[in-house]
Amino acid sequence: MSGRPALTWRSALQKRRYSRGMELVEERLTAVATAYPGALGEACRATLAAGGKRVRPLLTLLCARRDAALSEPVLRGATAIELLHMATLVHDDVLDRAELRRGRPTIAHAYGVETAVSAGNYLLARAFQELVGAGDPAAVDVLSATAVGLSEGEVLQRDDAHRVTVTQAEYELRCERKTADLFAAACRLGAMLSGAAEQAAALSEYGRLIGLAFQVFDDILDCSGDEASTGKRLGADVRDGTVTLPLIFALEVHPELATLLSSKVQSAADVVTVLRTVAGSGALARARGVALGYIEGARRVLAACPDFVERDLLVEVAAQVVDRYS
Amino acid sequence: MSGRPALTWRSALQKRRYSRGMELVEERLTAVATAYPGALGEACRATLAAGGKRVRPLLTLLCARRDAALSEPVLRGATAIELLHMATLVHDDVLDRAELRRGRPTIAHAYGVETAVSAGNYLLARAFQELVGAGDPAAVDVLSATAVGLSEGEVLQRDDAHRVTVTQAEYELRCERKTADLFAAACRLGAMLSGAAEQAAALSEYGRLIGLAFQVFDDILDCSGDEASTGKRLGADVRDGTVTLPLIFALEVHPELATLLSSKVQSAADVVTVLRTVAGSGALARARGVALGYIEGARRVLAACPDFVERDLLVEVAAQVVDRYS
Repeated sequence: MSGRPALTWRSALQKRRYSRGMELVEERLTAVATAYPGALGEACRATLAAGGKRVRPLLTLLCARRDAALSEPVLRGATAIELLHMATLVHDDVLDRAELRRGRPTIAHAYGVETAVSAGNYLLARAFQELVGAGDPAAVDVLSATAVGLSEGEVLQRDDAHRVTVTQAEYELRCERKTADLFAAACRLGAMLSGAAEQAAALSEYGRLIGLAFQVFDDILDCSGDEASTGKRLGADVRDGTVTLPLIFALEVHPELATLLSSKVQSAADVVTVLRTVAGSGALARARGVALGYIEGARRVLAACPDFVERDLLVEVAAQVVDRYS
Repeated sequence: MSGRPALTWRSALQKRRYSRGMELVEERLTAVATAYPGALGEACRATLAAGGKRVRPLLTLLCARRDAALSEPVLRGATAIELLHMATLVHDDVLDRAELRRGRPTIAHAYGVETAVSAGNYLLARAFQELVGAGDPAAVDVLSATAVGLSEGEVLQRDDAHRVTVTQAEYELRCERKTADLFAAACRLGAMLSGAAEQAAALSEYGRLIGLAFQVFDDILDCSGDEASTGKRLGADVRDGTVTLPLIFALEVHPELATLLSSKVQSAADVVTVLRTVAGSGALARARGVALGYIEGARRVLAACPDFVERDLLVEVAAQVVDRYS
């Protein structure tokens, strides 16, 4: 169900502790999704069943002190992070008017915008409810700051649509709000909720960096991936006017792309032209280099972390964020 | 800016403590609304400027121990409740496809569905952030349970649309989720955050009862109010297929209304026919009787509360919920 190649977190899940932990998180997610009857419950169950990589809750477990990775507070933190992520996906599909997500119809498309808005609100409220039970107000503060940032990220992306003057720094800020802050929060909560608060800053930075890499690879896949394995239509960002890093780099070599990218209506042929031009410009390799730089930064951060967090497994997760593209 | 007649909370605001308290809440709300640039910030500021009665935060202050009504935790609770309410309004207008709210264009209509969804998410996340600062996890639990209930209420209303077999008990449950639970939470938080937790259950019940009365009066106004003073188009519930208490009662006397109410498309003449039939059926007076019963229940609950909460002012708020209709 991953919808992406080569994202198995194999070694982590071969350890009984984490495979059991991820089962427990899945049970908690299922309990939330099945708690509600009717269309809203159906929409939540469909979101859950559509799968996804569950990388965020796994990061929460791996960033916890090893002896507390299956404790209730950590499991609650992992579940809350995935619920917030699910809420964001459901609302994003409303905002993007997307019809497919991971190869299946989106909730907004299958159940209507109204049910999607309510289902997203329900999942968001449930995320807070789940985390409150962990009894750590500072953890709830992390979740609410992340949720505020996510809504800001949505708006940044919309305000910047079709603006071909977006800089790499502006792109990075948007990726932080949209994606990396949630990865950072997943890691931070693992540390905070397992009595390793002194590791929270470093692990949060690790999360931020692999989150940034994750988003850059996602944006590369949108330009050059295989629709069958990504489960999305290629060139969605081009069509939405989302000026991603590969497009920023391609614009430097081919400034004439600006006309097509800033236009709000593109023909299928235009999209193909843009993608071919991007592929021929060296922009994809350059973007990949940026992402690998983030991963390298994440490895350096981990090297300084103590042994009671799963340093080796976290290095492997970082590597797999790269692998899914290679 | 109230958009409703006779809702001034006069006596409460004549007391310096509460007029100052409400100013402080307004400053906190303004800080949230002005924190964000661009369309999202504009949408938040428009929501704030559109006013509203601020009855919920006032209830939080009035349900606090008198000597702690202006304490930071109570002000945070009051602000969080109003932010959650604002988030709900912004999202509701998306769900209802409403064009006017309090006589002004809705956010969804003026700024688009995308900005409305993001602005609602932003306000919701900010509500949690505001409350977390009060340092009481049980209070955050109240807010998240209320937010879960609100999303359930939205769905109940949609699932029940055009279903003329809705019973009074089903209607009451929907009103609790949609409206009364938020009033109850406003009161409960006032007690909890001011060290009067032992009063939380009683004050929450008071809030639930006036919230139910408030919703019933709102539904009566939709059938018989004056568009200029309510700021909404008359008969919105009839058009949306929301079977409210006046309609339930009218259906008992005029079962033939079922055909018009269960139809998904109504002409302007159909809506006028329904409203005239409701007005002639005695249903409005009967619904008003139900609402007065809730108010009477709220008064009885207060009679048993100790003096350190603003019992007399709370009685007056209950009375004003009635007055706005008379």
